[in-house]
Amino acid sequence: MKQGCPVSQRLTHMPVSSIRKLTPFVNPLREKGVKIYHLNIGDPDVKTPDVMLGALRNWSIDPVRYAHPWGEPKFLDALLAYYSKIGYPWLKRADLLAAQGGSEALVMTFLGIADHGDEILTFEPFYSNYAVCCAITGVKLNTVPTSIHTGFHLPDEKTIESHITSKTRAILYCNPCNPTGTIYSKDEVESLVRLAKKYNLFLLADEVYREYTFSGVTPTSLLDYMQEMPEQAVVLDSLSKRYSLCGARLGNLVTLNQELMTGLHKIAQSRLSGGLIAQVMGEHLLEVPESYMEGVVAEYRHRRDILVAGLRKIPGVTTYEPEGAFYLMAALPVEDADEFCKWLLTEFHPNSETVMLAPGSGFYGTPGAGRNEVRFAYVLNEKDLKRSLEILKEGLTKYKA
Amino acid sequence: MKQGCPVSQRLTHMPVSSIRKLTPFVNPLREKGVKIYHLNIGDPDVKTPDVMLGALRNWSIDPVRYAHPWGEPKFLDALLAYYSKIGYPWLKRADLLAAQGGSEALVMTFLGIADHGDEILTFEPFYSNYAVCCAITGVKLNTVPTSIHTGFHLPDEKTIESHITSKTRAILYCNPCNPTGTIYSKDEVESLVRLAKKYNLFLLADEVYREYTFSGVTPTSLLDYMQEMPEQAVVLDSLSKRYSLCGARLGNLVTLNQELMTGLHKIAQSRLSGGLIAQVMGEHLLEVPESYMEGVVAEYRHRRDILVAGLRKIPGVTTYEPEGAFYLMAALPVEDADEFCKWLLTEFHPNSETVMLAPGSGFYGTPGAGRNEVRFAYVLNEKDLKRSLEILKEGLTKYKA
Repeated sequence: MKQGCPVSQRLTHMPVSSIRKLTPFVNPLREKGVKIYHLNIGDPDVKTPDVMLGALRNWSIDPVRYAHPWGEPKFLDALLAYYSKIGYPWLKRADLLAAQGGSEALVMTFLGIADHGDEILTFEPFYSNYAVCCAITGVKLNTVPTSIHTGFHLPDEKTIESHITSKTRAILYCNPCNPTGTIYSKDEVESLVRLAKKYNLFLLADEVYREYTFSGVTPTSLLDYMQEMPEQAVVLDSLSKRYSLCGARLGNLVTLNQELMTGLHKIAQSRLSGGLIAQVMGEHLLEVPESYMEGVVAEYRHRRDILVAGLRKIPGVTTYEPEGAFYLMAALPVEDADEFCKWLLTEFHPNSETVMLAPGSGFYGTPGAGRNEVRFAYVLNEKDLKRSLEILKEGLTKYKA
Repeated sequence: MKQGCPVSQRLTHMPVSSIRKLTPFVNPLREKGVKIYHLNIGDPDVKTPDVMLGALRNWSIDPVRYAHPWGEPKFLDALLAYYSKIGYPWLKRADLLAAQGGSEALVMTFLGIADHGDEILTFEPFYSNYAVCCAITGVKLNTVPTSIHTGFHLPDEKTIESHITSKTRAILYCNPCNPTGTIYSKDEVESLVRLAKKYNLFLLADEVYREYTFSGVTPTSLLDYMQEMPEQAVVLDSLSKRYSLCGARLGNLVTLNQELMTGLHKIAQSRLSGGLIAQVMGEHLLEVPESYMEGVVAEYRHRRDILVAGLRKIPGVTTYEPEGAFYLMAALPVEDADEFCKWLLTEFHPNSETVMLAPGSGFYGTPGAGRNEVRFAYVLNEKDLKRSLEILKEGLTKYKA
């Protein structure tokens, strides 16, 4: 009998989230008293709306019972009111499923639309957890390249079409895009709608950054096309970024495909319920004043401008002006950004400070792609952001020397 | 091009949780004003400890940031203190992983120890969500029968052994057992330990009802054997039942297998974090007075006694005295308990009241097994429990007539 009890092959081969890849280096640094500027993860410093914290402080449900497995009715109604307000009054409660964060909505959707060995097409660089969710669900992530030189906008329809295979079950895209901050134009979204229709594919839109738009235009939502492709469109959504509720784990999905929804209910029931506390907080979303999101967007636009201007001043750095979300990719004058990001943490601590970035390679499916790129999540205030830029600039000089 | 966009095969073939199977009949009944005594789901009526609700009412963390992906340090330390108190002071923080309920711990573990097509061996009747978690993860659930006539205790070691195949990767058991309430003896647990060692299998113990014991004995925990089989033992745990926190979604797993834990960290990172709010509540677990759990156990023992005595007075009903948890299976004098449970909801409403039970068949893997059985979750107070028994007795008479 062989020694040891081997873990599964899928676990062994599962990629590490590139957003968290460098986490093991953090604690030793903290113990040394080194301050880390975290630009690696989208954990915003924006305050959670008072009315949502108030739902905690005035808590009255005792015991903390299970929530309804596919969502507390009051929470789903609050979501309906939100979607109605942004232009989709025809949605019904049965079209929504509450989830434990956008992450759960994603895994549930993958399970629901693809079998082991099927493919989902997406654009690289992509949100790196898409790859882990694929590994979990046994689905292959097939990637279409986009380039920093075109601000990571989509290639033409023919190019995308050439990546569709007999195994492709869905096209997945993130708009506004994590990790690039790119907002796809109406034409770009419509090219995906046409391809999904032509090849009878699911079209999955991750729209958790919907409100984070800095150009004054409303990003084109897949909800605009949902009624004309009711069986194919799925919108993945989350309250994490919209209301600074990352740790509450509160998201949802939207689809008019009732067969899919009936199936997803089985998955939802298997984990008994989502979080009751988060959903009770979420019930108050319409009470959050308009000024809240306006203030957040103005602040992030300001940060984007600082970051883009700062990066453009560093010799050898290539970047672009992202239209939304709160991410940006940049190509650095290094050969291997993985090594550079690690070096910043392990070796480079001017004034006992350093910067933590997400290496770009983890956002790509093509081997070797994005090797000199990094992702910035500009979730720091102006002062910290400026200091981070200084550290980065100095680090690049020292690293090359 | 074919019409429509078919959902995945795994979704189509996924079993419906038998605990929730009858949920679609509930709303129409409520609208008619019919009161339903819910004995179908383990959602306890016990109050959540004040100190945990206090963590909500005194909430100060703003924004509600992500939790640490594998558990907030303070929460993990509180769990360590709990395990130390019940006899396992040698556990370390790195041996624990926080999860969004025992359900997430279960799916993560299945993903970590078995590949698509592998088998997990368990005993039927089993917690029906094991089957859904297997469907989600592409693992086959291989079941060893146990019988109501022996109080659902385990068969002898040879019988269990005869069900192990070359594809078996783990033995999974629930102790105290949901859905049977059975507490396995030390000898029974040791037979599983021996088999796991002999065949180099993972041994997975679902111990979320650890404290629910009515015979005065402490159930034998797999933690007693963990150090002698460090690579093989995994304990699945949850605070849902221990502190009436079902809707908080707070569980954890324990293993000394560092390769497995490193892999599970990748899965944990892919969903960014578990719930921060639940973990902050959980940090206070040691402040819950001893009298809390003592009161809960005394109440459930009382309810068990009422239920067992009541069922024994109904002609044709077969049952036994379960040692723990808050479940009990009973064989009813009907041919098809699925039909009977549905009939109670749709047809039988004496005084505008009825009873909701979980049909037994969903807790079995063998086709046709448990067809005349139901599971009771005795989560109602004495008065409601007695009234439920009256309705059941009357229903069985009317149904047979």
